[in-house]
Amino acid sequence: MNIGIVGLGLIGGSLGLDLRSQGHQVLGVSRQEQNCQRAIARGVVDDASVDLALMAAAEIVFICTPLAAIVPTVEQLIPYISPSTVLTDVGSVKAPLVEAIAPLWPNFVGGHPMAGTADSGIEAAQPNLFALNPYVLTPVATTPPQAVRTLETIVLQLRATLYHCRPSDHDRAVSWISHLPVMVSAGLIAACMSETDPAILALAQQLASSGFRDTSRVGGGNPELGVMMGLYNRQELLRSLQHYRHQLEGLIDYIEQEDWIALEQQLKSTQLARPQFIQEGSENPHA
Amino acid sequence: MNIGIVGLGLIGGSLGLDLRSQGHQVLGVSRQEQNCQRAIARGVVDDASVDLALMAAAEIVFICTPLAAIVPTVEQLIPYISPSTVLTDVGSVKAPLVEAIAPLWPNFVGGHPMAGTADSGIEAAQPNLFALNPYVLTPVATTPPQAVRTLETIVLQLRATLYHCRPSDHDRAVSWISHLPVMVSAGLIAACMSETDPAILALAQQLASSGFRDTSRVGGGNPELGVMMGLYNRQELLRSLQHYRHQLEGLIDYIEQEDWIALEQQLKSTQLARPQFIQEGSENPHA
Repeated sequence: MNIGIVGLGLIGGSLGLDLRSQGHQVLGVSRQEQNCQRAIARGVVDDASVDLALMAAAEIVFICTPLAAIVPTVEQLIPYISPSTVLTDVGSVKAPLVEAIAPLWPNFVGGHPMAGTADSGIEAAQPNLFALNPYVLTPVATTPPQAVRTLETIVLQLRATLYHCRPSDHDRAVSWISHLPVMVSAGLIAACMSETDPAILALAQQLASSGFRDTSRVGGGNPELGVMMGLYNRQELLRSLQHYRHQLEGLIDYIEQEDWIALEQQLKSTQLARPQFIQEGSENPHA
Repeated sequence: MNIGIVGLGLIGGSLGLDLRSQGHQVLGVSRQEQNCQRAIARGVVDDASVDLALMAAAEIVFICTPLAAIVPTVEQLIPYISPSTVLTDVGSVKAPLVEAIAPLWPNFVGGHPMAGTADSGIEAAQPNLFALNPYVLTPVATTPPQAVRTLETIVLQLRATLYHCRPSDHDRAVSWISHLPVMVSAGLIAACMSETDPAILALAQQLASSGFRDTSRVGGGNPELGVMMGLYNRQELLRSLQHYRHQLEGLIDYIEQEDWIALEQQLKSTQLARPQFIQEGSENPHA
């Protein structure tokens, strides 16, 4: 098929690599000419342009821009594409995007490939980024079944694990396991930095090891992504933060009351619960 | 030297492997005869016994039992050793242990090797477990300098990075970077489990990936260790939890107020601060 990708960063670039290796013709659009040249040079696309008119030949277009640019990009793209073109996006929040785009373009299917690396940009693009990772599609009542089937075929070619759900269910679920962890983890770093004795702070920095490193990782990530989570998924994020604060207060109470039996029961329940969220084998750092 | 190890688990066993490879004679005590046999078979010790009398020949004794057993073990050990014997422990909290043991045995130096794996027990013992990791010694005013020097030599032979500090400073620093993360992380798992819609919970479990995996890791660990942190480091842990709650409430406020500029500034400051806690190269999962 002719597949268009608007936004040639980590996700758009990695999509291009995999789709070309599956025999598709891949056309890319980036706002920067230099990025177009790099995408061609890296073999991410067959052709690239700063002009959305290149998308006229595409049967499917993936919008892979940052979250805030997705709706404006769709609006700019519409004059260039035919009604049969299937549109999809890769944004990490779905309800507000689907609500905005579905009325503009009936042949739209919201999507969220849950894959990434610490790096970003076209240079970070890699083959098989999506393999074995979840890829969520969020069709609604008005979405044409044929558009969903077309995208399902592509997702399976990426060797991703396909899920379907309502946009709002997606946003609530990712709030728990993706957006809440960022705030929890950022709070940890901020709390440590609030230590006012510089000797203790320096000692804490020297002694920090894998426990702190892992728990603080996502809180030390890209600030713009964290703001986007708040901006686009505010209601769900606040709901999960309020539940989290309640659980935290329970733990503080147990320690204040020296209720070690209750603390142990709570820690046993979290120990038992965690494997239900962790795919088998994913603890392997080489995986 | 003749070096004794009481408690042949991950830490005691790994110490034995490294100390024997440095040419020391290593004598081990475990409460279980079967564990003594396994320690000898694995080459962790030269000789082992369930009887503390074996420690009579040791010039240094490392107490490597669980935290709650350290003081009782020292009390039981004292009748068997001579006044010149240097005692040390590997407990992860220092002030209450040093306060209890220093009056019983002047030749005692509190210690904390900050190394570990997800596994425990003698079968998990491995060479070079301590290499490049912090090893904290917490001598007090009454500690004989010669005892500290003897231990420093051993710590350097383990290729660990040596730190000295007061027991109370150690406990405050580890509360920030080791004990607080356990509670923060356990609270995350507990919050996710509080989702009452089973379809959303199942979706969250399916979609959880590296962000949730890393942030939840230490909260899904050994419940007994978490309880020990509360029991032995209660005051410092409560202090760090209260600072953490304050930071969390600040993040919730920014999102409630839609103060995206303040949220971005906070996330920028945590992004900037984190590398000060993370040793260069330690992000490499192969390290």
